[in-house]
Amino acid sequence: MLPLVIAAQDKKLVNYVSPIIGTAKMGHTFPGATVPFGAIQLSPDTDTIPYAVDDRYNGEVYRYCAGYQYDDPTIVGFSHTHFSGTGHSDLGDLVAMPTVGEVQLNPGTADKPETGYRSAYSHSKELAQANYYKVMLEEPKVLAELTTSERVGFHRYTFPKSDQSHIILDFKSAIYNYDQKNIWTVVRVLNDSVATGYMQSSGWARTRTVYFAVTFSKPFKNYGASSTREKVPYQGFWRKFNQNENFPDIAGQKIAMHFDFDTQDQEQIQMKIAISPVSMKNALANMEAEIPDWDFERVKYAGQALWEAELQKIKVDLLEEDDYVNFYTAMYHAALMPTVYMDVNGEYKGLDHEVHKADGFVNYTSFSLWDTFRAFHPYLNLINPERNADMVSSMMAHYDQSVLKMLPIWSHYANDNWCMSGYHSVSVIADAILKGVYKGDARAALAACVQTANTRNYEGIGEYIDYGYVPDEVSGTSVSNTLEYAYDDWCIAQLAKHLDVQDVYDTFIKRSENWRNLYDANIGFMRPKDTNGKFREEFDVLETHGQGFIEGNTWNYSLYVPHNPVALIETMGGKTQFQTYLDSLFSMHLPDKFFANTEDITREGIIGNYVHGNEPSHHVVYLYNIAGAPWKAQSRIRMIMDNQYHTGHDGLGGNDDCGQMSAWYIFNALGFYPVSPASDEYWIGSPIVKSATMHLGEGKIFQVEAVNQSEKNVYVKQVKLNGKTVNDFKIKHSEIVNGGKLTFVMSSKPSKR
Amino acid sequence: MLPLVIAAQDKKLVNYVSPIIGTAKMGHTFPGATVPFGAIQLSPDTDTIPYAVDDRYNGEVYRYCAGYQYDDPTIVGFSHTHFSGTGHSDLGDLVAMPTVGEVQLNPGTADKPETGYRSAYSHSKELAQANYYKVMLEEPKVLAELTTSERVGFHRYTFPKSDQSHIILDFKSAIYNYDQKNIWTVVRVLNDSVATGYMQSSGWARTRTVYFAVTFSKPFKNYGASSTREKVPYQGFWRKFNQNENFPDIAGQKIAMHFDFDTQDQEQIQMKIAISPVSMKNALANMEAEIPDWDFERVKYAGQALWEAELQKIKVDLLEEDDYVNFYTAMYHAALMPTVYMDVNGEYKGLDHEVHKADGFVNYTSFSLWDTFRAFHPYLNLINPERNADMVSSMMAHYDQSVLKMLPIWSHYANDNWCMSGYHSVSVIADAILKGVYKGDARAALAACVQTANTRNYEGIGEYIDYGYVPDEVSGTSVSNTLEYAYDDWCIAQLAKHLDVQDVYDTFIKRSENWRNLYDANIGFMRPKDTNGKFREEFDVLETHGQGFIEGNTWNYSLYVPHNPVALIETMGGKTQFQTYLDSLFSMHLPDKFFANTEDITREGIIGNYVHGNEPSHHVVYLYNIAGAPWKAQSRIRMIMDNQYHTGHDGLGGNDDCGQMSAWYIFNALGFYPVSPASDEYWIGSPIVKSATMHLGEGKIFQVEAVNQSEKNVYVKQVKLNGKTVNDFKIKHSEIVNGGKLTFVMSSKPSKR
Repeated sequence: MLPLVIAAQDKKLVNYVSPIIGTAKMGHTFPGATVPFGAIQLSPDTDTIPYAVDDRYNGEVYRYCAGYQYDDPTIVGFSHTHFSGTGHSDLGDLVAMPTVGEVQLNPGTADKPETGYRSAYSHSKELAQANYYKVMLEEPKVLAELTTSERVGFHRYTFPKSDQSHIILDFKSAIYNYDQKNIWTVVRVLNDSVATGYMQSSGWARTRTVYFAVTFSKPFKNYGASSTREKVPYQGFWRKFNQNENFPDIAGQKIAMHFDFDTQDQEQIQMKIAISPVSMKNALANMEAEIPDWDFERVKYAGQALWEAELQKIKVDLLEEDDYVNFYTAMYHAALMPTVYMDVNGEYKGLDHEVHKADGFVNYTSFSLWDTFRAFHPYLNLINPERNADMVSSMMAHYDQSVLKMLPIWSHYANDNWCMSGYHSVSVIADAILKGVYKGDARAALAACVQTANTRNYEGIGEYIDYGYVPDEVSGTSVSNTLEYAYDDWCIAQLAKHLDVQDVYDTFIKRSENWRNLYDANIGFMRPKDTNGKFREEFDVLETHGQGFIEGNTWNYSLYVPHNPVALIETMGGKTQFQTYLDSLFSMHLPDKFFANTEDITREGIIGNYVHGNEPSHHVVYLYNIAGAPWKAQSRIRMIMDNQYHTGHDGLGGNDDCGQMSAWYIFNALGFYPVSPASDEYWIGSPIVKSATMHLGEGKIFQVEAVNQSEKNVYVKQVKLNGKTVNDFKIKHSEIVNGGKLTFVMSSKPSKR
Repeated sequence: MLPLVIAAQDKKLVNYVSPIIGTAKMGHTFPGATVPFGAIQLSPDTDTIPYAVDDRYNGEVYRYCAGYQYDDPTIVGFSHTHFSGTGHSDLGDLVAMPTVGEVQLNPGTADKPETGYRSAYSHSKELAQANYYKVMLEEPKVLAELTTSERVGFHRYTFPKSDQSHIILDFKSAIYNYDQKNIWTVVRVLNDSVATGYMQSSGWARTRTVYFAVTFSKPFKNYGASSTREKVPYQGFWRKFNQNENFPDIAGQKIAMHFDFDTQDQEQIQMKIAISPVSMKNALANMEAEIPDWDFERVKYAGQALWEAELQKIKVDLLEEDDYVNFYTAMYHAALMPTVYMDVNGEYKGLDHEVHKADGFVNYTSFSLWDTFRAFHPYLNLINPERNADMVSSMMAHYDQSVLKMLPIWSHYANDNWCMSGYHSVSVIADAILKGVYKGDARAALAACVQTANTRNYEGIGEYIDYGYVPDEVSGTSVSNTLEYAYDDWCIAQLAKHLDVQDVYDTFIKRSENWRNLYDANIGFMRPKDTNGKFREEFDVLETHGQGFIEGNTWNYSLYVPHNPVALIETMGGKTQFQTYLDSLFSMHLPDKFFANTEDITREGIIGNYVHGNEPSHHVVYLYNIAGAPWKAQSRIRMIMDNQYHTGHDGLGGNDDCGQMSAWYIFNALGFYPVSPASDEYWIGSPIVKSATMHLGEGKIFQVEAVNQSEKNVYVKQVKLNGKTVNDFKIKHSEIVNGGKLTFVMSSKPSKR
């Protein structure tokens, strides 16, 4: 059971959270209710899209990664699971919708909402807060309110007077491929107000089963189910029961159900839906443990109290009110994924399709590691070290259950979708061990990293090992892969060094230099190379697609050597030439045609040719620090923050990427950034806070102060750590977590020493 | 692990077992390997039939209830689960087939076996024994041998020399509806000789999952999988792995796999497949527990030793060698179903889709109760009381897990298919409690019986309660239902009486007289009646279909009052008129058109208008005993046994019906029969044994002796139980199970006292 009262405090930070930020266009955030890292994300979906073949670039499927698009005129229903900020869609499980009138078991269309159970709505009658969402559904005239606990979605529907009030549960509808995703559904109606069941789907996740339990605050008078599977081979020519109405033993493909009520005017019917990855029994137990009663307000405030506690970990003073909204919404967005993936009794379904019990850790799922290894997991290492340790434990469990013997690439719900390049689990693991966060078996973790990095048949790793780079013939993203493998290999080397395993260190530190093999000194860029050692002839340095790169062109990706930037600068012609390169990157004119090919971000997500909305550039601005022009880093950081993060539904220029974009914002707001996770260094930027207090656990506090902070004073005149001047624009992890104070003196003029 | 040696003995009864009996036409038995009540029935399938809509009368689906038809020219493969003698098809899980040459992942057609993995074969190179099946596959020139333990199928394939030897595992192929049944399959190849997985199907059973583990005696050199699901939405546009060959993480719909080997001439490759209803982990544990090694011969003999022990429970002396084959094959066929449905650790998936652990009993599945309540379960009460007690426990577990709150009708693998009429679980339960076999909570059992019998929305029960009969409008089988409900109600009354629950007794003894409500004295037959109390106008007394009956016309069904035959005879005009009725039944000419409509039996399964192949008549011949002409019973019983049970593939004239037909044979061979289970009486017939010794457990022995036994001496001159003359042609259950001797004096002349 959740805590009953929210702690008294001066100011509720949770009120700054604006879940609507990023819900337009490509932000791909959801406005609905959830608790920090909760298994349930109960949120409105504004469309569910018919099947499109296996292609994230089918625009419609891509549009609904988080189920909700701010500009859409109708709401299809409220589903219980959502990704936040991804560039690929899935989930959207268990669509619920209150309706009045004739029973309709299909959603209908956005232009004719009356053809289905969906409804028009207006943003003027909509409210999105942390763990609370409210909207007036115009067609049925039903006020829908949503809140959650970790594993339970709580609905409160205020109906008009009607003897035809319904709650629809559509098990066939879902995000990704509406009419093909459901493989099988089972529902058991246990009595007049409780049902259990499971939905098995093949969406982006190949094999995924969600068990559920649903309870209604008022007994339904009737219920029924439909299945769109034309021929369910079952029970011969006998029809022993009338299975259409009030038949409690339901199974089939693509089932939708209606539960019918008589309602008085303004009568509230509440519904709770608990989920489990393991069994209906566990779903019921989750519900009983988390929300045994019908007190919507208590659950709402309990969840908001969890958010408040989360946000209180960093108290900031900022220049403007909007900055608070941006900052705390970033903290909110950086606490949505990965999600808890186990029942209250610790059970979960593993990658091996077996039921496991998480032993001494909270099991998490939905790791978008290509995004999150950069700033998100390092951020957790500071303010949520226990969660990050558990995430590493979750990755290790995934590895142990993997028949491929690989750490997760893009795992969710007992699947790995192998999305994006690299094997960045190793970065998260090495970072967590080197920073003393993960306290499990470090040698087993190193073995898992090595085994993963030696999976020869995975996207060119074999050739990478043999040639020192992924050859052009082997992969359409050969350069991205090579550069990211090299960084990951450096992480493994760091971990091996830490554990004093010399042979592994030797092997992987050597591999970490493989980025050199794809640098074409003739053109001054990284470039695809074939197995004969020849660079690709046809090559456009602005192209992001099909020329060796993924989510970034060579202008951006050539800078991706976060573990050895000094050598990179040397290789690229020295500091001056490198500075010029960076200047060009931020200022050049990008021809229109390249915008169409740039993934996951709107045009606004691009500054010159610098693509902030895509992760490979996230460390780039800091390279000015060692190219002899830290002041350029400082001003550009402030420019990026100003430019790329806004309040309002269209506040994000691109996918939030499961909190990576937000974590970038938080670090930069505080004035430092982990350029190369698995090192213990943070590089100094230009904070936007006037001051900040980070609560790092065990009573440790780290303070940031920016003297003379203003919108114009973007330059750092001086940095002091605990009173001592920081000369190299770097601070160490230990210097933060042991507590202390980082003092910036800001200025409107660059300090060109 | 199974016992290592078969007990030494004078004569192996197991050698009389001829699994080929009944494999032609409508016997629907399977020739393959299994152990008594084993979960695995590893047997060749001679065809797998494309989808036919939900209709058991689609001839082809019906033909392959047991997968094998003796007259077919090809074998598709060896699958691991089979019904025995049913009239509805399902199962046929995990089709395995050795092949040589190009990989083919579809079965091909019987007329062109070279178009797929199937092969021609010849009966001259085929051998079917208890727990051993052998056949030469002509196309690949592979000798296939099969044996089993309780949960593991053991294959031994002797290959020719080839570098293209394969073992195919086709997860899409199955009995019932070949190309639509598979819902989802997962396979994990753990190493070069072990794989695990599960297959989820919707066949006759709506939702059924079989988990498996497969191991090969020799490492495969390569393997691969195909899926016929055209679009598996998975992992976006990346194809990180080559998933066609040697990719160990397989999932999709309708998957078939090949495992490739180099073989020397006459090289044997062995394969074991274990199944589990719960998990892959459990399947592996089942294999490890039951067959940890590769000793095919040991496993074969261990299983045959189990059979020998089973058969030794009744030692008989018979007149002819063929009689031994018929008798012991009947015992064999009466020990195939229901099957063990739990793992070695006691876990199984319940009707509620949850994992349960059988607490103190062996859980069984596949209850064809309409057939088996009559003689099969009473037979178990004599020679396998522990198994029958466990079957009652299994039914009670089913009830506890039922959201419908019903005892099983036709349950298998966590489903109820609601096949045929009545709620005959109550007969089995009452019989087992009244005979002291089931020692569980009898009051809980009574409550389950009462609850089931009051399921108003199940096939006319509500109207049956209201009107005293199932009205014609409500069900196409209204008379069958009414008569069977009335008998079942009498069973409940007997149990209530036994437990001294007077109100239940009063209610159900009254309901048990409902058969009277459908007797039309004007025509002298049972007849459908509508809700207005009017008998159906259009009515043909020979018709079995659509006129109120199922698997029997009114000539046969009018006699179905096993619990009150004296009243029936009185109602039908007294003994003389009743005798004439029976004489007509056995001797009348049945017009051709009715043969086409008679289910589940060939024309040979009918004697006059007496349909021995369908169960409603199984007690009929005994009614002569109380109609004043026991000698007619005696001669007709001998005639039926002679007429209906033969050796050879076409030895059975109709479905064996999960052992009911065989149990009928065994009882009648011994000279008595349970006319009305849930009474403690057996009625005296005419034995075919010269002598018999029944081992009833706890050292108790019951002997049968037939003095002057011969083919002609079909009449019983005298019957003595322990030396005392039996005058009423009845003996009691207690008189058998306490041990003793039943002596018949046989004669060629009827004793018309």
